Amino acid sequence: MPAFHNFPRVAVTTLRWGFLLLLLGGSVGSVCALFLWLLDQATDIRFEAPWLIFGLPLAGVGVALLYQWFGGKSAAGNNLIIDEIHKPGGGVPFRMAPLVLFGTVVSHLFGASVGREGTAVQIGGSFAAAIGRLFRLHVQDMRLLLMAGIAAGFGAVFGTPVAGAVFGLEVLTLGRLDYAALLPVAVASIVADWTCHAWGIHHAVYHVGFRGIAAADGSMFHVNAILLVKVGFAAVCFGLASRAFADGVHRLAGVFQRLCPSAWIRPAIGGVLTLLLVWMLGTRDYLGLGTVSHVEGGASILNFFGAGYYPWSWLWKLVFTLVALATGFKGGEVTPLFFIGAGLGNALSPLLGVPVDLLAGVGFVAVFAGAANTPLACTFMAVELFGATDVIYYATGCFIAYLVSGHTGIYLSQRIGTPKL
Amino acid sequence: MPAFHNFPRVAVTTLRWGFLLLLLGGSVGSVCALFLWLLDQATDIRFEAPWLIFGLPLAGVGVALLYQWFGGKSAAGNNLIIDEIHKPGGGVPFRMAPLVLFGTVVSHLFGASVGREGTAVQIGGSFAAAIGRLFRLHVQDMRLLLMAGIAAGFGAVFGTPVAGAVFGLEVLTLGRLDYAALLPVAVASIVADWTCHAWGIHHAVYHVGFRGIAAADGSMFHVNAILLVKVGFAAVCFGLASRAFADGVHRLAGVFQRLCPSAWIRPAIGGVLTLLLVWMLGTRDYLGLGTVSHVEGGASILNFFGAGYYPWSWLWKLVFTLVALATGFKGGEVTPLFFIGAGLGNALSPLLGVPVDLLAGVGFVAVFAGAANTPLACTFMAVELFGATDVIYYATGCFIAYLVSGHTGIYLSQRIGTPKL
Repeated sequence: MPAFHNFPRVAVTTLRWGFLLLLLGGSVGSVCALFLWLLDQATDIRFEAPWLIFGLPLAGVGVALLYQWFGGKSAAGNNLIIDEIHKPGGGVPFRMAPLVLFGTVVSHLFGASVGREGTAVQIGGSFAAAIGRLFRLHVQDMRLLLMAGIAAGFGAVFGTPVAGAVFGLEVLTLGRLDYAALLPVAVASIVADWTCHAWGIHHAVYHVGFRGIAAADGSMFHVNAILLVKVGFAAVCFGLASRAFADGVHRLAGVFQRLCPSAWIRPAIGGVLTLLLVWMLGTRDYLGLGTVSHVEGGASILNFFGAGYYPWSWLWKLVFTLVALATGFKGGEVTPLFFIGAGLGNALSPLLGVPVDLLAGVGFVAVFAGAANTPLACTFMAVELFGATDVIYYATGCFIAYLVSGHTGIYLSQRIGTPKL
Repeated sequence: MPAFHNFPRVAVTTLRWGFLLLLLGGSVGSVCALFLWLLDQATDIRFEAPWLIFGLPLAGVGVALLYQWFGGKSAAGNNLIIDEIHKPGGGVPFRMAPLVLFGTVVSHLFGASVGREGTAVQIGGSFAAAIGRLFRLHVQDMRLLLMAGIAAGFGAVFGTPVAGAVFGLEVLTLGRLDYAALLPVAVASIVADWTCHAWGIHHAVYHVGFRGIAAADGSMFHVNAILLVKVGFAAVCFGLASRAFADGVHRLAGVFQRLCPSAWIRPAIGGVLTLLLVWMLGTRDYLGLGTVSHVEGGASILNFFGAGYYPWSWLWKLVFTLVALATGFKGGEVTPLFFIGAGLGNALSPLLGVPVDLLAGVGFVAVFAGAANTPLACTFMAVELFGATDVIYYATGCFIAYLVSGHTGIYLSQRIGTPKL
């Protein structure tokens, strides 16, 4: 902190950054609100018009052509933003935001199994870059603003502002966290989340009733040693699932690239494969976000926290999502990772004798922690979504999954700061 | 993660580390339980025998002589452990543990205003070093075990295992967090905390009733933008208090060293000054830990969360603690920092129009976050002590206090990784 005679300079810097971050958080929060509203509409329409799934191959090709004609560097997505923070270069084009928003909504309308965090992060990054260019920020300030943009998108889209802030710091480098942007990411993420709620957006609410909110005396403490060991064992499985996802999506993308060098045709293959999978399994539960199911008792993230048993849903969601992402459908990875994690937690729960809501909750955050290499952000996410009483289990799950998941991760441009093990 | 053909090596490493960390966590947790029990006894005895305060100068001299004769490098305390992790050298002597435990209990029996985290961290560090020597660990493994020892001591003494784990990673370097020890710190901290509870130790329970545990629909979300701005303003005050504490203790120690070059006489000065302060103010509320007061409605951490108003208690605690620590009394800094933070929150609450329990809770963790430069550990601590619903206010408080508090901090051997601002 500068000395007090620097007060005018400090005041100007504070006001300037305050303005930039309010502008960033407000705009990203608003666009994320629009995005979440459109996603809801698209999902509802798809539930009511199931024949839309037959349009999936064509829809994928349409979006891919759009990217080919107008996208420029936008196709690099999240990796472009992370690269730009590590090694400022050509900048992040503004067109990334509308393209990825449109592309993701199309994916969900026609039923591709993709998520939304990638979209939100790209909206955040491209708005940050645009604001930075508008106010002619220096390279170092631009880096901070880009991190704040990532945090804003993430915080708003999941309704988890503290996790968003930590994610913006943690995602850049595997095994290391740098505090330079600590306050900018927090402000942007909180403002974006607040704005998104102010537009009337509500997020899904998950109930982890295990042990309730707190002990009778108000104390948060309870750790059952045996339960913790069981959760630790499950976390190894969660980490291996993260690894299968991250490795799988990169390998499968390579296979499809060799099979079909034209990027714009690949989504057609993915669409047809998805149709075949739906026909083979006779269920549409693995299309789209998967937060809720259109049939009573269907496989969905919310249902994994309840009494139903879904032994293989996590695996099918993994297959559907690998197919969609590896063939170039637009959207994020994280909500499918939530689905895979909560589903795997549901599947392991009776085998290990762990309450299903607890293990679904741990899996929800742990598979994502392992795949994105962001264990602290995911622990905070669990606290923001499920409450504080079981934080020790969430932290254990995220930390172990992080260690077990290897060095790949879903973001290839993430640098390796400190190797694991 | 190594490939599967390395399974035997991975299994051996896992078992070996599991054994080391269970041993470390179990022993540190047990000694911390003994320490907390002794502290309770010492505080009770002091409440019942108020004349003990007159022994404070002599008690301080006695402990200082003990360190001079038998302490060796132990007097360097926390800084020795942090230095040893950054630059392995002469090692951490085992005698540090019994000496600091005895010295701290003596401080509390006679009423010095000190804390307990330093003691717990030193117990953790010296047990880790002893176990490392016993099993002939390599330098790199010894570093990990020392971090785990810090985490174990911190987690057990405050009953906050996740905060303890993150503290063990975060305290080493200002502005940067390295994940190499992620799992060891978590295991050690959780085991130590569990062991400490298994011995029947209970921690103080703080009630932050503001907005309750969760919204009616189970959702954790609520952010009031105006309230958040007010908390942010208070957090600047918290950060300045952190700064006054960290700068103050180092400067005052320098002054006392010039006034009185003999280290063993200095506690006598501190003891006499403390007696004078007690006589001048006519209250014993600022002696010892300050978690509870021996008189109804007295200034104490628990009372700061309630209806009473204590406008200057934080300042007097600051003065008492600077005097005790700068003249060489043994004990930690953190519980006095909790007192100063919660007290300042109590004092600011009517001025800013923020619910007193919320602002006392934010101050509790934020002043500590600023003084120790550990904003993430302190945010987790708030979650573990006060619950999840207000996490956004705790994070804001800790992040801002961290930024405002300058580069000094209470741990001088902390390296600067990424400068603030």
